Amino acid sequence: MPYVNIKITKEGGPDGTGPTDAQKAELIKGTTDLLERVLNKPPSATFVVINEVALEDWGFGGLPVVEYRKTL
Amino acid sequence: MPYVNIKITKEGGPDGTGPTDAQKAELIKGTTDLLERVLNKPPSATFVVINEVALEDWGFGGLPVVEYRKTL
Amino acid sequence: MPYVNIKITKEGGPDGTGPTDAQKAELIKGTTDLLERVLNKPPSATFVVINEVALEDWGFGGLPVVEYRKTL
Amino acid sequence: MPYVNIKITKEGGPDGTGPTDAQKAELIKGTTDLLERVLNKPPSATFVVINEVALEDWGFGGLPVVEYRKTL
Amino acid sequence: MPYVNIKITKEGGPDGTGPTDAQKAELIKGTTDLLERVLNKPPSATFVVINEVALEDWGFGGLPVVEYRKTL
Amino acid sequence: MPYVNIKITKEGGPDGTGPTDAQKAELIKGTTDLLERVLNKPPSATFVVINEVALEDWGFGGLPVVEYRKTL
Repeated sequence: MPYVNIKITKEGGPDGTGPTDAQKAELIKGTTDLLERVLNKPPSATFVVINEVALEDWGFGGLPVVEYRKTL
Repeated sequence: MPYVNIKITKEGGPDGTGPTDAQKAELIKGTTDLLERVLNKPPSATFVVINEVALEDWGFGGLPVVEYRKTL
Repeated sequence: MPYVNIKITKEGGPDGTGPTDAQKAELIKGTTDLLERVLNKPPSATFVVINEVALEDWGFGGLPVVEYRKTL
Repeated sequence: MPYVNIKITKEGGPDGTGPTDAQKAELIKGTTDLLERVLNKPPSATFVVINEVALEDWGFGGLPVVEYRKTL
Repeated sequence: MPYVNIKITKEGGPDGTGPTDAQKAELIKGTTDLLERVLNKPPSATFVVINEVALEDWGFGGLPVVEYRKTL
Repeated sequence: MPYVNIKITKEGGPDGTGPTDAQKAELIKGTTDLLERVLNKPPSATFVVINEVALEDWGFGGLPVVEYRKTL
């Protein structure tokens, strides 16, 4: 009975506005397979939910992501 | 002090794009009442947050929901 | 494809340390039934996860719950 | 290693549709600073994620927020 | 900037009470690698948090997991 | 209507096993005050939930926290 929530910043992908549906399908398959391989969790009882988060809504190092990256 | 988070796929409702505000109000009332009835939790201290998730962002059985349903 | 997360303070129940397993089962059945009734979501695709939170880990009104209640 | 998730109703701000990016940056800085001051958590290992939630998706007192406020 | 939360029922592993630390490390490495491979997300900005959930706190099909399995 | 969830690794504090109740109260007050100051959110409608996460359940850089720190 796994539930996996993947939060990522909304960026990247072919046009810079986030992953494609095919990339999301890879994340879904990859995490489901991982849980089956490592813990024998059945895919038929595994949920994966992906959330894309706008850059201004994600903070790291005390700064919004865009500002944070300027410090690197 | 309950906090309830309900995540559903964004679909259904009158035009297929998700529940109506009236249906959401039913979910809010239903879960709040349930917590009061079963555990005596006061509605005045119960939050309910609903999230609708795009179909391509929800995986089940290792597949995005739309692909998963084709296997049934 | 609903996922419901219910967070409650760890208290109440027969010995004051939280709900019984039977009460938890009522919460699980109640929310699952609600989603089926209001949105036609199948129970076979509904997850419910309950988390009990220690009183000192829950704040309301800017205070831990125990202190908050003294102000009422 | 803190992770902070702030959920707020989508309202307020200069045009009523939610906080500005500057206000979000204040929330990010404020929570990150708080964790450093109180628990010595390094900002370089602190994530903050903000979610704005539509008013019809947030319930309090068994009612959607807009209806709830009418009862006050 | 990914944040991954993996919730699993607390069971399995060598003594039936949940995964070993080595299995958890595999989940951490596996999801972090997946996000790097599919979306080019740097491991240095990837958090993974695992939660084990007691069987009585997880519902599926409207029943606590242990009861649900008896119906299969 | 804010809901704030603070997840921290279970460590630190006077005996190394996590923050004291007084430190948790500071986090609750600090985040509630911040939301009132920046966004005018009333403390009477602000929930804060703190979760402590065991070190082996938190990954960063593709490694459990304890292993990750050895690489620094």
